[in-house]
Amino acid sequence: MIIVMKPDATDKLISKVKERVLKDGFKIHESRGVKHTIIGVIGDKQGLDTRLYGLLEGVYRVVRVSTPYKIASRSFKKENTVIEIDDIKIGGDNIVMMAGPCTIEDQDQMNESASNLKRIGCHLLRGGAFKPRTSPYSFQGHGESGLKIIKSAGEKYGLKIITEVTEVSQIPLVSEYTDIFQIGTRNMQNFAMLSQLGKVQKPVLLKRGMSATIDDLLLSAEYILSSGNQNVILCERGIRTFEPYTRNTLDISAIPAIKSLSHLPIIVDPSHSSGRREFVSPLSRAAIAAGADGILVEVHPDPDNSVCDAEQAITFGHYTELLSECRKIAETLNRTIITD
Amino acid sequence: MIIVMKPDATDKLISKVKERVLKDGFKIHESRGVKHTIIGVIGDKQGLDTRLYGLLEGVYRVVRVSTPYKIASRSFKKENTVIEIDDIKIGGDNIVMMAGPCTIEDQDQMNESASNLKRIGCHLLRGGAFKPRTSPYSFQGHGESGLKIIKSAGEKYGLKIITEVTEVSQIPLVSEYTDIFQIGTRNMQNFAMLSQLGKVQKPVLLKRGMSATIDDLLLSAEYILSSGNQNVILCERGIRTFEPYTRNTLDISAIPAIKSLSHLPIIVDPSHSSGRREFVSPLSRAAIAAGADGILVEVHPDPDNSVCDAEQAITFGHYTELLSECRKIAETLNRTIITD
Amino acid sequence: MIIVMKPDATDKLISKVKERVLKDGFKIHESRGVKHTIIGVIGDKQGLDTRLYGLLEGVYRVVRVSTPYKIASRSFKKENTVIEIDDIKIGGDNIVMMAGPCTIEDQDQMNESASNLKRIGCHLLRGGAFKPRTSPYSFQGHGESGLKIIKSAGEKYGLKIITEVTEVSQIPLVSEYTDIFQIGTRNMQNFAMLSQLGKVQKPVLLKRGMSATIDDLLLSAEYILSSGNQNVILCERGIRTFEPYTRNTLDISAIPAIKSLSHLPIIVDPSHSSGRREFVSPLSRAAIAAGADGILVEVHPDPDNSVCDAEQAITFGHYTELLSECRKIAETLNRTIITD
Amino acid sequence: MIIVMKPDATDKLISKVKERVLKDGFKIHESRGVKHTIIGVIGDKQGLDTRLYGLLEGVYRVVRVSTPYKIASRSFKKENTVIEIDDIKIGGDNIVMMAGPCTIEDQDQMNESASNLKRIGCHLLRGGAFKPRTSPYSFQGHGESGLKIIKSAGEKYGLKIITEVTEVSQIPLVSEYTDIFQIGTRNMQNFAMLSQLGKVQKPVLLKRGMSATIDDLLLSAEYILSSGNQNVILCERGIRTFEPYTRNTLDISAIPAIKSLSHLPIIVDPSHSSGRREFVSPLSRAAIAAGADGILVEVHPDPDNSVCDAEQAITFGHYTELLSECRKIAETLNRTIITD
Repeated sequence: MIIVMKPDATDKLISKVKERVLKDGFKIHESRGVKHTIIGVIGDKQGLDTRLYGLLEGVYRVVRVSTPYKIASRSFKKENTVIEIDDIKIGGDNIVMMAGPCTIEDQDQMNESASNLKRIGCHLLRGGAFKPRTSPYSFQGHGESGLKIIKSAGEKYGLKIITEVTEVSQIPLVSEYTDIFQIGTRNMQNFAMLSQLGKVQKPVLLKRGMSATIDDLLLSAEYILSSGNQNVILCERGIRTFEPYTRNTLDISAIPAIKSLSHLPIIVDPSHSSGRREFVSPLSRAAIAAGADGILVEVHPDPDNSVCDAEQAITFGHYTELLSECRKIAETLNRTIITD
Repeated sequence: MIIVMKPDATDKLISKVKERVLKDGFKIHESRGVKHTIIGVIGDKQGLDTRLYGLLEGVYRVVRVSTPYKIASRSFKKENTVIEIDDIKIGGDNIVMMAGPCTIEDQDQMNESASNLKRIGCHLLRGGAFKPRTSPYSFQGHGESGLKIIKSAGEKYGLKIITEVTEVSQIPLVSEYTDIFQIGTRNMQNFAMLSQLGKVQKPVLLKRGMSATIDDLLLSAEYILSSGNQNVILCERGIRTFEPYTRNTLDISAIPAIKSLSHLPIIVDPSHSSGRREFVSPLSRAAIAAGADGILVEVHPDPDNSVCDAEQAITFGHYTELLSECRKIAETLNRTIITD
Repeated sequence: MIIVMKPDATDKLISKVKERVLKDGFKIHESRGVKHTIIGVIGDKQGLDTRLYGLLEGVYRVVRVSTPYKIASRSFKKENTVIEIDDIKIGGDNIVMMAGPCTIEDQDQMNESASNLKRIGCHLLRGGAFKPRTSPYSFQGHGESGLKIIKSAGEKYGLKIITEVTEVSQIPLVSEYTDIFQIGTRNMQNFAMLSQLGKVQKPVLLKRGMSATIDDLLLSAEYILSSGNQNVILCERGIRTFEPYTRNTLDISAIPAIKSLSHLPIIVDPSHSSGRREFVSPLSRAAIAAGADGILVEVHPDPDNSVCDAEQAITFGHYTELLSECRKIAETLNRTIITD
Repeated sequence: MIIVMKPDATDKLISKVKERVLKDGFKIHESRGVKHTIIGVIGDKQGLDTRLYGLLEGVYRVVRVSTPYKIASRSFKKENTVIEIDDIKIGGDNIVMMAGPCTIEDQDQMNESASNLKRIGCHLLRGGAFKPRTSPYSFQGHGESGLKIIKSAGEKYGLKIITEVTEVSQIPLVSEYTDIFQIGTRNMQNFAMLSQLGKVQKPVLLKRGMSATIDDLLLSAEYILSSGNQNVILCERGIRTFEPYTRNTLDISAIPAIKSLSHLPIIVDPSHSSGRREFVSPLSRAAIAAGADGILVEVHPDPDNSVCDAEQAITFGHYTELLSECRKIAETLNRTIITD
């Protein structure tokens, strides 16, 4: 941490700041510039609120030098984290495909989805039993009976399961049915849930909040990691901007950014980021091209009659093409999409 | 709802769309323009996902006409909602003052805060026992012992209590100690918690999410209202924008906007919206001038040694001036800040 | 400037960075932390692109310490700048009122505007002869004949003139008619025009770009100031955010921010920032309460038939009330709105 | 256009609105819903400010049905526009590569750039002679002597030229040297310059403003198109968001969006959108994968000593790899990058 003093800060004020820093257990390195005196604060204290020093009289600015997260950082662990679920590897050379309907509607819909997705090529079956909806009048999901349906479809056709958990109390229940816990964009900073999922050993897919910075996302991952669960998958799904044409703006730069800052796998949800069916293929291709470790996409046996998010769901035929395109792009980067 | 067909939509496609709309139980009114045929969809169905029609072949655009929320809207209830907690009225001519430290640290700190705030002028004492923190390494609050401290300080000096609840399971506990439940910006779309607070009869102060539109905020209020609790207070606390100078950008226009769209009271938190101590007074004055029903502000006996958010906390002396300035502005608008 | 080295930067890399900095004419102050070595770069070079050092091998981050603007900064000039146009003072204790139609339509409209505004209370008459319009099919202004009309109306009723210049070549022409040059939001970074207006001695009102940070705005002011014209008035008119309810989001915090960073006067345009007539009064009141030095507002004899921006123009009756409300708020802050 | 009346609008108010619409030369189609009466306004008037009707008493909302731009729209012209500069085709199956330094420094630098880029594979040489800089203290470009340098280098090595024009008065001069006019992000709404470039027949590359919506960009293109120049190339270069890690957020979804809304070619600038050298390759790959028609990238013989934007410039070696990667991805989409 670096404390920059104001140009007119007196020696007395500078001394007072230095005393406070020393009192807090740090060492000091002082440097006098043309305008500003700079106090280097030496020491390592996770969780100290550096803004505090900004309040002391005569202080111009406080600059944090280290990243605020630790276990999630690339400097903590140099090699990419690879998460294994039986023979599925997330984060390695293989690119993972997660697909399925927005909401679990009934057993037929999930069986049809699972059998087709397995046939076309897919690793994990998605589908929501607990749905966080902006309006209280929208369908909120089937709950436990939905979990049974998705689990049954996954087992029948040989697909692992990923499904959303929206509340701490659901964790034990959802844990019985899912292979990966999904945390949605609105819960990225539901810290109680993050900590609790840190005590479970199943992988967690953490979606970026729609107004979360990359640092915020990595700090939320740190909640899970520092509570003991090292199996965190990050997911970019679009951020809120002024552009009204797409529901959200997919932050494609977040992929190389996260690859540089962290060792955790990062996948992309092209369905929610655009909210438009015709954008799912180009955005999936772009994600793979930018270096993403996988794709999470909404596919529905009959998208026009989907119970929710119909506007962004694609057909099995569309998914077949998408997979083929992504596979070709992956190969240009020496990566593969291995499916049975 | 209005369905606008594409310029080149054939009669056959137009017929198919009309059939679907009729099948869903609506009536139809058709109008042929120079370029576009427009299908007016007549009927009232809360919760229907209008984006669905946007998927039908030949459809150019679907325009929603009604507001998505109902009980929260001004057209549902014309008069301003006034929430009463004993003799405190929130939402009437009187402007409500809520103040106190960010975090409950110890009994001395809360007693000193309560006695000074009561003396200067204040209605509700704030202070957090459960703190949602971006970093897992930051202080997370004292929990129940903190609640006991704030309750004791409030009772001793005659101030009502407002404190945050961060998880569904805390509701019964927090309910024993607080007069108003506070929902923080990161939990504005914690729908499980919103629904649960709809079944409690104590008032709920709902902070706007930092990337929530005004419509999103009113839909979250609708969760509480439609579950049975009519005592909702909205709180503008700044949104995320590209401007780095302030922590968030206070959306001052949200005040007249909400006054026009809804009957619910709206108060402003000038501390979190700026993240800077020296902005608390000008933003409080602006909020009152724009028509806000109250102010929620961080005050600390010794701001420089505050355990959290020190950068934005103000002293009792500063609060005295702020109150005096706000009072004068309130009077120019024929409103008052009545304190003992 | 401070250069922070990566945790694993070797001594050799550190030496290379230091050599480069010395070669560029700076002095150095080195400090070794637990993780990072920090190189303080001492010296004052306006215009040096500090991002350059960020490229050197082993460098983790470069932190700029000084503000990038100089003449516009509060540290360059401590007292508030007061700009005088005859007996009108902009930036002092008096608050300045600028009002008039969006576009100069005809002599009758401008005479009616001028006579009414003078009667009610106003310092400068606004109206556009050159209109920058998003669509090429919208009305683009009357040009020189419009300038003659506004000048004639201003002279007849005793109001000074403020009007927009949209291109370098218009400066000599507009200079014959106006008392203040207005630079619109889309031209805030039209650097050729800024430099040219720095060579004119008439005051310039510089509107913040809709995606400009406060630093960007002050750097644009610096273009004018460093070219020789010290009479710059800043104007906050709303920024682009995700909120769709208002056309732009008025950044009310920019007022105390600019007051702290700069000595230049700052006024507010509540008409363009909201794009809604019913928000003009509450936002004007908020602006004065936050410390703004004036208001620039769209008033029209017959708003519903205004040639442009009808949605945000107010009537003379509405303006009368607005002025009265602002006057009362100004008085609570020991400021006045003196009009004949 | 559709006018939605308020639920409580009386028959008298509805009649008044209808009269006004008829007076303006439109036809009407009325439809009464459960809550709202809807007035369909039939007719086609470019440039009419539809917000005006929103002001009439009893009106709830006005919804525009047609796009505000015409010539730029896909409905105006179904086939993709292909712009030809000798044997270079922009917008067809071939993907165009534009590369070179940010600023023209001297003849050696430009010759070295041109000879290497030609050898590696490139269609157009970029380099700025007029530089719009945020700070008045930054280097502003060599002007005409710079234009001579880039032209000479281009001719010597067989590359066409693209360079920026920052002001109307420069158009005739720049026209002597360039093959494509570049309009920078800060000039996207410099309407005087857009109109003037509509009268020139050379192609214009129009960069998206950093806070411009896709509609704004297409309306700016419409200025050029409606003035007579049909050779417009659009360029996505990142928008302003809250994310601080990248200088701007590349809006990758804008590529499929523009492909759907317009027939104009769209290329991507991965250098300015990220402001980080290590992101140039992944973002270039993503752009091609998403369907972009080309890439505009900053390459410098010695990036670390570049006069401007050093942080984002790449070496010839890096460019060689980037081209190879983009070529492979283009091929998976049945497109090619043909270079000599």
